[in-house]
Amino acid sequence: MTSIEYQVVGVGNALVDILSHEDDGFLSGIGLEKGAATMVDADASEALYARMGPAAEVSGGSAANTVAGVASFGGTAAFVGRVGDDTFGRVFSHDLRSVGVHFDGAVAADGTPTGRCLVVVTPDAQRTMCTYLGAACDLDPESVDPDLVRASAVTYLEGYLWDQPLAKAAIRRAARAAHEGGRRGALTLSDPFCVERHRAEFRVLLEGSVDVLFANEHEICSLYEVDDLDAAMHRVRGHCEIAALTRGPLGSVVVTRDDVHVIDPHPVAQVVDTTGAGDLYAAGFLHGLTAGLDLASCGRLGSLAAAEVISHLGARPLQPLALHAAEVLER
Amino acid sequence: MTSIEYQVVGVGNALVDILSHEDDGFLSGIGLEKGAATMVDADASEALYARMGPAAEVSGGSAANTVAGVASFGGTAAFVGRVGDDTFGRVFSHDLRSVGVHFDGAVAADGTPTGRCLVVVTPDAQRTMCTYLGAACDLDPESVDPDLVRASAVTYLEGYLWDQPLAKAAIRRAARAAHEGGRRGALTLSDPFCVERHRAEFRVLLEGSVDVLFANEHEICSLYEVDDLDAAMHRVRGHCEIAALTRGPLGSVVVTRDDVHVIDPHPVAQVVDTTGAGDLYAAGFLHGLTAGLDLASCGRLGSLAAAEVISHLGARPLQPLALHAAEVLER
Repeated sequence: MTSIEYQVVGVGNALVDILSHEDDGFLSGIGLEKGAATMVDADASEALYARMGPAAEVSGGSAANTVAGVASFGGTAAFVGRVGDDTFGRVFSHDLRSVGVHFDGAVAADGTPTGRCLVVVTPDAQRTMCTYLGAACDLDPESVDPDLVRASAVTYLEGYLWDQPLAKAAIRRAARAAHEGGRRGALTLSDPFCVERHRAEFRVLLEGSVDVLFANEHEICSLYEVDDLDAAMHRVRGHCEIAALTRGPLGSVVVTRDDVHVIDPHPVAQVVDTTGAGDLYAAGFLHGLTAGLDLASCGRLGSLAAAEVISHLGARPLQPLALHAAEVLER
Repeated sequence: MTSIEYQVVGVGNALVDILSHEDDGFLSGIGLEKGAATMVDADASEALYARMGPAAEVSGGSAANTVAGVASFGGTAAFVGRVGDDTFGRVFSHDLRSVGVHFDGAVAADGTPTGRCLVVVTPDAQRTMCTYLGAACDLDPESVDPDLVRASAVTYLEGYLWDQPLAKAAIRRAARAAHEGGRRGALTLSDPFCVERHRAEFRVLLEGSVDVLFANEHEICSLYEVDDLDAAMHRVRGHCEIAALTRGPLGSVVVTRDDVHVIDPHPVAQVVDTTGAGDLYAAGFLHGLTAGLDLASCGRLGSLAAAEVISHLGARPLQPLALHAAEVLER
């Protein structure tokens, strides 16, 4: 049996985030629904960028943010995704590797540029996203090395991957390799709009290949088409070993077949930008889980990581999360 | 006589800042003096980047930061500088134009990439910079349109330009056009290391072409090779109409032939990154000056802008400075 080299391998869209602060009128002026994550083509992405104010460019991508978070806790992590042979591709690769995440950095074959996510941050710290996937779409089944999956305690998949036909086959390959190797598969539902688009497929997936599910309450309620979290919890506990359900400022609940752990949020002095909150919650949780911590501790590490990332612009930690992990666990 | 179209035209290096948080050991490990601004070639820039942690990319460049700040106050501004025909060039152009700064965006002829400034931010919020000028070096005398200078109340030059032989001729052309048009010339000494490199030339320049000088106390003391600010103030007041001398957390002093105004700093909840503090002080000061305010009010607007920019990562305002200008002036 392959020995474990990485706590988490993330499979996801390699994106650079382009973030600007805008007022609510900006969103209504361009017909974007606040909080949505929309897929756009290259031309629409350029047109929106031209209307945005001055921006900051920071590496993003949901699963990539999560593995960067695991590394920030001092954990071992790898990432599978596709960049272009360009400046943003080099920025994305640098930002993962410089925190110690293993990333082969393979570029899309056809010269497609690195994907980008235009992120509009409104004064309420909510983020609204328009993603041009670009080279990220080049993630095909051959991109996923079964040995890497078998060498990772958890294979973590982002729901956004379901927006790409090729990536679905890559996901199935990764999930199969994980289970055959006796490893865990994890999934984040990513976004309520993403759940709307892929509800049936997500439900099937949850019944077989997912051991750990991450979702916020809107996503899990949409998945099961129920109105409240209690009903959703009732449904999900029959399907996967662990479901970590985030509730924004209310914290999170961790649900297993037999138990429910209610996790307090970690205090935040000022919420600046909620981009990446869910991604970093998953980072803390999975770091704890693969380090053998109990589920309540996993949840507390998730809350810590989410609190750090929403206190500043951008979806990756600015402070090493390892700095505060011990004090959170001592509480 | 040309009518005034812009309050300030900035002439400077077009750079994208690549900022990472590092500890003090990082600087000593690579032999960089804290607070220094060093010029490096493309290879050295790549080598340093490879050692830096995850970074954020944000438009920078001293004079460009200043004109972006003027625009953030609701003022009119233009920028003269050279980018490359590449991603960072488009990012730089976007970030200026999207706040309303006029910028022709002319690219370097020979395919040289856009300049970049690697900025290492230490836990004390101090910044240490390594700049690869790239396309910024293409700023030649032909780049400066005398009509643009004559249409601007103030032509603002950054001391860093003295590191490029071609740019010096561009500066002389700009200064001449400003004076012939009855406009003011302004200069920032940029950096104590920059003053070390160009002391004699800066002194000559101050005696003829500079009406408004910006410097921090280290720079002005280095310029005149004196030990304290009083001595430097004594020297500078004979040379230029207005000298605005910044003192970090102590605020600033504005010196004319006959007066000295002592300006308090604007309160800052937490100093995160001092990159751009001087640039934004100049923005507030020049916005006030060209709007006809008294010198003490100009200084207060400078303090306000500096306080905003040091409260977050990056050297450009995240909040419109116009929002708080009125309340600062009412005090």
